[in-house]
Amino acid sequence: MFNLKIVTRTLGSLLIGEGIFMLLALIISLIYREGDSVDFIYSSLITVSSGLFLLLISRKASPKIGKREGYVIVSLVWVLFSVFGSLPFLISGSIPRLHDAFFETMSGFTTTGASILDNIEELSHGILFWRSLIQWLGGMGIVVLSLAILPAFGIGGMSLFAAESPGITPEKVNPKIKDTAKILWNMYLIFTAAETIMLLFGGMNLFDSVCHSFTTMATGGYSTKQANIAYWNSPYIHYVIIFFMILAGTNFSLSYFAISGSPKKMFKNEELKFYLIFILLFTSIITIGLLITDHNGIEESFRNALFQVASIITTTGYVTDDYLLWHPFLIYILFMLFFVGGSTGSTGGGIKVMRIVLLLKNSYYELRRLIHPNAIIPVRFNNRSVNNQTISNVLAFFFFYVTAFFISSIIFMLFVDDYETSIGAVATCLGNIGPGLGSVGPVCSFSHIAPAGKWFLSFMMMLGRLELFTVLVIFSPAFWKR
Amino acid sequence: MFNLKIVTRTLGSLLIGEGIFMLLALIISLIYREGDSVDFIYSSLITVSSGLFLLLISRKASPKIGKREGYVIVSLVWVLFSVFGSLPFLISGSIPRLHDAFFETMSGFTTTGASILDNIEELSHGILFWRSLIQWLGGMGIVVLSLAILPAFGIGGMSLFAAESPGITPEKVNPKIKDTAKILWNMYLIFTAAETIMLLFGGMNLFDSVCHSFTTMATGGYSTKQANIAYWNSPYIHYVIIFFMILAGTNFSLSYFAISGSPKKMFKNEELKFYLIFILLFTSIITIGLLITDHNGIEESFRNALFQVASIITTTGYVTDDYLLWHPFLIYILFMLFFVGGSTGSTGGGIKVMRIVLLLKNSYYELRRLIHPNAIIPVRFNNRSVNNQTISNVLAFFFFYVTAFFISSIIFMLFVDDYETSIGAVATCLGNIGPGLGSVGPVCSFSHIAPAGKWFLSFMMMLGRLELFTVLVIFSPAFWKR
Repeated sequence: MFNLKIVTRTLGSLLIGEGIFMLLALIISLIYREGDSVDFIYSSLITVSSGLFLLLISRKASPKIGKREGYVIVSLVWVLFSVFGSLPFLISGSIPRLHDAFFETMSGFTTTGASILDNIEELSHGILFWRSLIQWLGGMGIVVLSLAILPAFGIGGMSLFAAESPGITPEKVNPKIKDTAKILWNMYLIFTAAETIMLLFGGMNLFDSVCHSFTTMATGGYSTKQANIAYWNSPYIHYVIIFFMILAGTNFSLSYFAISGSPKKMFKNEELKFYLIFILLFTSIITIGLLITDHNGIEESFRNALFQVASIITTTGYVTDDYLLWHPFLIYILFMLFFVGGSTGSTGGGIKVMRIVLLLKNSYYELRRLIHPNAIIPVRFNNRSVNNQTISNVLAFFFFYVTAFFISSIIFMLFVDDYETSIGAVATCLGNIGPGLGSVGPVCSFSHIAPAGKWFLSFMMMLGRLELFTVLVIFSPAFWKR
Repeated sequence: MFNLKIVTRTLGSLLIGEGIFMLLALIISLIYREGDSVDFIYSSLITVSSGLFLLLISRKASPKIGKREGYVIVSLVWVLFSVFGSLPFLISGSIPRLHDAFFETMSGFTTTGASILDNIEELSHGILFWRSLIQWLGGMGIVVLSLAILPAFGIGGMSLFAAESPGITPEKVNPKIKDTAKILWNMYLIFTAAETIMLLFGGMNLFDSVCHSFTTMATGGYSTKQANIAYWNSPYIHYVIIFFMILAGTNFSLSYFAISGSPKKMFKNEELKFYLIFILLFTSIITIGLLITDHNGIEESFRNALFQVASIITTTGYVTDDYLLWHPFLIYILFMLFFVGGSTGSTGGGIKVMRIVLLLKNSYYELRRLIHPNAIIPVRFNNRSVNNQTISNVLAFFFFYVTAFFISSIIFMLFVDDYETSIGAVATCLGNIGPGLGSVGPVCSFSHIAPAGKWFLSFMMMLGRLELFTVLVIFSPAFWKR
């Protein structure tokens, strides 16, 4: 039987947690005295009491959490967090309409970074901080979920690690969930702090440094400035952010090994190798392209190329250059990266580098299999052979992803005029990136999209963040049988 | 060792065959006395003597044809046929430039139907006939190849049937290649004759009826009129062509069973079922869409929807309505069908209905596998379970197809200005359809594409027609080892 009570109970506890985090924004609001402190108090009170209410109605819950309960909790928590997380926006009146506030908050928690705001700088510091904080929490959540919690529950679909695939089991950071989570949490804190300090050195003020460190480590992309990172015309700041984006898009287990004295594991990792190769390759192509078509110097062209490539592949979504002004060929070279995404076990979204590499390898192996139909040629990854189950899962994921993208971009044609905007909006939301193409490009917002379109894209973001299967499995009849 | 001699010998014989078929166009040219008979004589002489030359240099060839020889022959024959097939266009001056003539001929033999001609009606009857004939031969070639020859040689990649997949072995028409080929050839002839007669009844003249029957049965789409099928404002003619397009997109083995007295096999076939469901579903959606947005009557909207849907899904590429004038949502609904294609063992191109169905089923099964990770749940098709090898092959094919489409459409941005034209051109050539989107839409031609772009698209057509693997396998190092 489905243990509804434990689902309710878990969601209740998590909601209380969200309500408590709102108090951090309250502190900022009190510091800056912009008169919206009471909005955060209300929001927090509503959230915490809703959480308490859920705890109340689910007393005496059996502690047994099975797979099905796990899937439902993971999917619902993003919806619930976005509903309550939009309270500060709604109550303060900074985003007065529900569909807008929900979109903005879902975009935050999923670390997408797509925004409906057209004048970010008019927001209060408290609201700006809350907006960055939800990304930071979302990023942390996904890392802990995919590296610590889901594998322990044997819940597949979300992460390759979680699926029972002895071929590519995770480089276990620590066998105990709590310890693993704690280590990840500490690393996340340390990286964020390190970036903040380095941004301060570059002349960014403390508030902006903290907010941007939050949204960099989450590969979120929300900025405190309407012009995004282009606001700072400082190569140093750009390079610092590039470094931390790439770090945030790297598997946190690998970073842990590097820090804790076994960097060898890092160099042997094929996903990391290809991740860096992709960044290098696309940066080179775009740098050359920009040098031919633009009239900037080598350093600026290289930096613009690297920044945009790192931002898109890690699914952060920051911008220092309006890539829609590039030559169409370069735009679509960059658009390819919308479908790559970060590494597994990172805060990045998208298809993920590991899946892309497995797909490429399997396709090449398929050619070899055609020549030698009787030979058994398993795909190898990190020097281990990957079992069929995993390959099949990755291939099915790819098919789901492409189909979801394709069908959604057609449905989305009902809300916009041109296909470019449609594929851009859907690809960027599904991949949790931020900026898209056409009228949702890097210097535009999503404000002009119709309310129904915003709900639709919000669902896309959640679908992408939870890597499709986790959400879709709930809708399959087989899930609810027995 | 690679048997180069038998490859040369086979290609030589086939070239002689092509040269002889040119004499059919010569006859038409003699009947209409348009002064270009000598062009066909020259073309035929060059082709036949080139074939004889190839035979001459490959005397005493060992008759052993292995897989590798098979792959090379199948790939090269399309190139060679297109080179020599463009002679009548070049010599007569109707298409004076090589890249244009090669594009037009490759588009013919691959039954794509994309054209560089802007004034088709100015061509002589001989040339128009040759243009239709190459599609007819290309269509026949692909059916015989995929249903009779390749399975016998155990050559996979081209056809699902050919891969060693006991799960979905072909409904063997006849165990002997020659007999199978003869039966298919006869059916192809009968269907073509039947369509010709029915078009004659509709008031189309004999020449146009024959040419259009040729290009319908081949799912080619070349017309003798610049306005394509829209030239005939006759519902009867439209419905006749719709019927034969759908027939041409059906597996020829199934049609054989239906004719030869076991229609049950036809109704039990899942690929046919889904093929018809897809047609029905998309026709319904587009009919409703057209009724809402246009001001035509129900019959006309239905007919326009059905004609365009059948034309695209079967990859014929005929048009009776400029679908680019439809509501963008409807355009992209239709564009989805660019990626479906006809049935296996038909003259249609694209991904093929069977693969799409297997992909959909496998994806759904993957969700079930997530819930019951230890259960072995094989995908079932036509009431038999499909083995992993086949599923893996289909999934790899899909990945190759999508990747080829995506990367090619980006490369093609170097030749055109907008992404819509680029994805349209690449999708239509890779799927062997004909019309695309943007500036290569249904009422446009490919004449404005730069020469390099035409060579590129010609390669796409061949890649699509030979279902990627057959061509790609030749480029893999493993193929040439040992």
